[in-house]
Amino acid sequence: MIANTPKPPYFAVIFTSTLKSSAHNYEAMAKKMVNLAQKQKGFLGLESVREELGITVSYWKDEESIKSWKQQTDHLMAQKLGKEQWYKTHKVRICYVTRDYPDLSK
Amino acid sequence: MIANTPKPPYFAVIFTSTLKSSAHNYEAMAKKMVNLAQKQKGFLGLESVREELGITVSYWKDEESIKSWKQQTDHLMAQKLGKEQWYKTHKVRICYVTRDYPDLSK
Repeated sequence: MIANTPKPPYFAVIFTSTLKSSAHNYEAMAKKMVNLAQKQKGFLGLESVREELGITVSYWKDEESIKSWKQQTDHLMAQKLGKEQWYKTHKVRICYVTRDYPDLSK
Repeated sequence: MIANTPKPPYFAVIFTSTLKSSAHNYEAMAKKMVNLAQKQKGFLGLESVREELGITVSYWKDEESIKSWKQQTDHLMAQKLGKEQWYKTHKVRICYVTRDYPDLSK
């Protein structure tokens, strides 16, 4: 459940959102995007939880991987649908992970 | 619900955890820690969601603020209890937030 990321440094994208009450088909698309993200170059892991607020953190090898994922064709469509139909509010934060603990690989 | 953070750069602490089935009094302590964090110097905001996995992201002005919060007396006690009694697994990631979008203050 906790992403098995390598030793820092690496990158994280924190995606926070609240959904409209009419967010039909959101769950299916969210699952599809998780599966697709896992196949991208530089993908290191993902953690996702939703109550009223949803937080999804994806981890990446470098900024180039993050930019490629943002521009992936199916992901572009999902981003468009998200803004138009699903998200009441959303925020994306691009981060450089400098350190982490404990080392869960031990 | 989404933290109203200032323009980057700023810092984020991504705290991910799963709880033991016997995590008594965890919720009360978690709420107390959120209230306490909000009073710390350099605190910028917090987002927290829990299902089986819990993700709490706190935002900070600088690394010094993060270090001070980590050493705060009541927080030290909560960290100790967390490791001993509540968390099945946990991970802390310290991040430098380089950019974010959209600007929700507009």
